[in-house]
Amino acid sequence: MSKFWSPQINDLVPYTPGEQPKVANLVKLNTNENPYPPAHGVQKVLNEFEADRLRLYPDPDASALINELATTLGVPSENLFVGNGSDEVLAHAFMAFFRQEKPLVKPDITYSFYDVYADLYGIKIENQKLNDDFSISLENYPSDNGGIIFANPNAPTGLALPLEQIKALLDRNTETVVLVDEAYVDFGGESAIELVNQYPNLVVTQTFSKSRSLAGLRIGYAVAQPHLIDGLNRVKNSFNSYPMDMLAIAAGVASLKDADYFNEMCNKIITTRENTRARLERLGFNLLPSATNFLFAEHKFIEGGELMGYLRTKGVLVRHFSRPDIANFLRITIGTDAEMDALIEALKSHPDMVELDA
Amino acid sequence: MSKFWSPQINDLVPYTPGEQPKVANLVKLNTNENPYPPAHGVQKVLNEFEADRLRLYPDPDASALINELATTLGVPSENLFVGNGSDEVLAHAFMAFFRQEKPLVKPDITYSFYDVYADLYGIKIENQKLNDDFSISLENYPSDNGGIIFANPNAPTGLALPLEQIKALLDRNTETVVLVDEAYVDFGGESAIELVNQYPNLVVTQTFSKSRSLAGLRIGYAVAQPHLIDGLNRVKNSFNSYPMDMLAIAAGVASLKDADYFNEMCNKIITTRENTRARLERLGFNLLPSATNFLFAEHKFIEGGELMGYLRTKGVLVRHFSRPDIANFLRITIGTDAEMDALIEALKSHPDMVELDA
Repeated sequence: MSKFWSPQINDLVPYTPGEQPKVANLVKLNTNENPYPPAHGVQKVLNEFEADRLRLYPDPDASALINELATTLGVPSENLFVGNGSDEVLAHAFMAFFRQEKPLVKPDITYSFYDVYADLYGIKIENQKLNDDFSISLENYPSDNGGIIFANPNAPTGLALPLEQIKALLDRNTETVVLVDEAYVDFGGESAIELVNQYPNLVVTQTFSKSRSLAGLRIGYAVAQPHLIDGLNRVKNSFNSYPMDMLAIAAGVASLKDADYFNEMCNKIITTRENTRARLERLGFNLLPSATNFLFAEHKFIEGGELMGYLRTKGVLVRHFSRPDIANFLRITIGTDAEMDALIEALKSHPDMVELDA
Repeated sequence: MSKFWSPQINDLVPYTPGEQPKVANLVKLNTNENPYPPAHGVQKVLNEFEADRLRLYPDPDASALINELATTLGVPSENLFVGNGSDEVLAHAFMAFFRQEKPLVKPDITYSFYDVYADLYGIKIENQKLNDDFSISLENYPSDNGGIIFANPNAPTGLALPLEQIKALLDRNTETVVLVDEAYVDFGGESAIELVNQYPNLVVTQTFSKSRSLAGLRIGYAVAQPHLIDGLNRVKNSFNSYPMDMLAIAAGVASLKDADYFNEMCNKIITTRENTRARLERLGFNLLPSATNFLFAEHKFIEGGELMGYLRTKGVLVRHFSRPDIANFLRITIGTDAEMDALIEALKSHPDMVELDA
C-alpha cells in the first residue's frame, strides 16, 4: 500500500500462478505444460531468424499469424484476434465486453484469474455453484447478466460440457457476451468455434501454451464475429500497439503448419492420461473425468495439501488449491510416461498408500 | 460500435502507430527504429536456443533480465519492473498511479499514447502548452494534480530538459507520481534514474526498442522506489502473469551484456543526426535541437503534409502529424548514412527545393 497508488490498487488481490521452480531435476506436473517439444518447425525458425530484423517493430496486426490461424481453424481472418498469451486476450475481453452495470456470471470454481480481471476493472461478479459432481449447470444461469464466462473444459476440474449445452445457453442468452475459454479443448473437448457464425455474442478463446507446447512464447487468440473482434482491437490499440513480438509470430506460424505433429502429441497425452487414471485409481484415488491435459484427483484417505507437500519432498510438483471445497484434490498435469512413473513411484512411497488389486 | 461492448469502449480513440509497410525497399524513417542490428549476442541467443524449452512457462518475474538491468543501470533489482514494450509499462503505470480524482498533467504536445491510456482508464487530463520554442515549461505545472507525465527527451519535438529542471519539479511536486518517459534518452538526454533514490514519487521508463535495436522483441522497463514497483507488479499480476516471453528475456540479457557495441551505435547515430541536420538546413529546413534518434524539421516554404506525401512517392517514409500546431513539421528518423543520402536526394528532387550555399 502506498499513498502514490491509484486508490483501487490497494484492494487488488493479484493472481498467483503455479510455481516456476528455479532448481532443475523436478518432475514438474503443476502448471499444465506440455511434456513434448513444440513442432520441429519452431526450432528451424529460431535457428534461421536473422537478428537484424528485430531492429524493426513487428507487424502490429500480427497478420501472418492471424492468416495461418484462419487456415488452421477454417474461419475468416476477420474472426480472429491474437494476444500475448490467452491471459492478455482475456484481460482485453473483460475490458471490452464485461464492464456493464449488471454482474458477470461465472462458475464459482473455474480459472481463478477471472475474479482478478473483474477486480482490476471494477466488474461485479455473480458466482454460480457447480453441481455436486463438479459439472457446470448452465441451465440455471440467470438471464439478467452483464456477460457470462466459463472455461470448457473447466479448470481445475477437467470436466467438459457438451456443445449442445452451450448452444442451448446461447439460444437463451442473446443480449450479452458469452465467453468460452477453451485453453484445454484440444485434449478431448468439443470446441464452440463452429457456433461463432450463428451467435453474434459468442467469444471463444484458445492458447498455444498447452497443446502447442509454446507456453514460453505467450500466444493466445479469440474467435468471434467481426464486431466483437473490433471491440478487442479497440482495447488492444489503446493499450499496446505491438503486443506480439516477431519471434512469437514466426514460431506460432511454424507450429500451426504441422498439424500431424500436433494431433500426434495431443493423442499421446490423452493415452498417458487414461493410463495414469487407471494407476491412480488402483492407489485409492477418486478422479473426475478429464478432457484436458491434467487429472483432478482426490485420495480416499490422505488429504490433498499433505500429499502435495509429500510429493514435493520427492521432487514431484503438483498443484493444490486451498479453497475448502476442493482442498482435498490435487491437479496433476499429464507429463511423459516416465514422469507419470515417477509420480506413481513417489505416491507408492507414501507410508499411508496401499495399492489395491488390479 | 456494438451493443455488446462495454459502454466506455464506444468513445475510445485508439493510438495510431507509424506505418509498418509490407512492401520492401522503402527507406523507412517513420517509426524511430534503429538502423543497426542488435548486439551480436542476440543472434547467438536465437541460434543456440533450444526450442524444447518453450514448452514451459517463462519466469513470471523475468529475473534474469531484471538482474542484468540492475547491473547495467547500477540500481538494485527491487527498483526495476519490466514489461512487453515500454507501452505496456506505461499502460500499467496509468492504471497503478494515475486513476486519481485530480487530473493528470502533461504537455499538450508529447507522445500521443498518453491521451489514449487516460481515455482507456477514465483518467482526466490537464494539458500544458509548450513554450514558443517547443520546450516544456515544468515551472508552470500546477501543484494540484493527480500526477505528471512527460517524455524527456520529448517526442516528437526531440528537445531534452536538463535534469535540474526535473529536480526542481520533484522538489515542488511531492504528493503525486511524476513519470519521466525516457524512450530516447540514450541519444543525448540526461537520465533521471539517478534521482530515483531521492524522490519516492519518481518513475522513469526506458525501452529496448530504439537504442538497443530490439523493437521487434518488445522490451521496456521502469525504474522507481520499491513501493512504486510494487504497485506496477500488482497491476501486472492482475493482468498477465507472464508478459515477457523466454526469447525476449534471453535476448534482452544478451543486449545488455554488450555495452561497447551499444555506446558505439548510439554515437554513430548522433554523428549521422548532426550531419543530417546541417544538410537539411542547407535545403531550407528549420530544425529543433535534438537529443533523440530523430529530427523534427519544418521547411521554410513547403508544407509538411505535402512533403511527406512527396517523399513517399520517392520511396522514403517519414512521419507527419496532422494536428495544426505541428502540421508543418516532419519527424525524420536517423537511419544509416546511406539512408540519409537517399532522403536528401529525394528532397532535392522536389521541384520547389532550392539548395542554399554551404
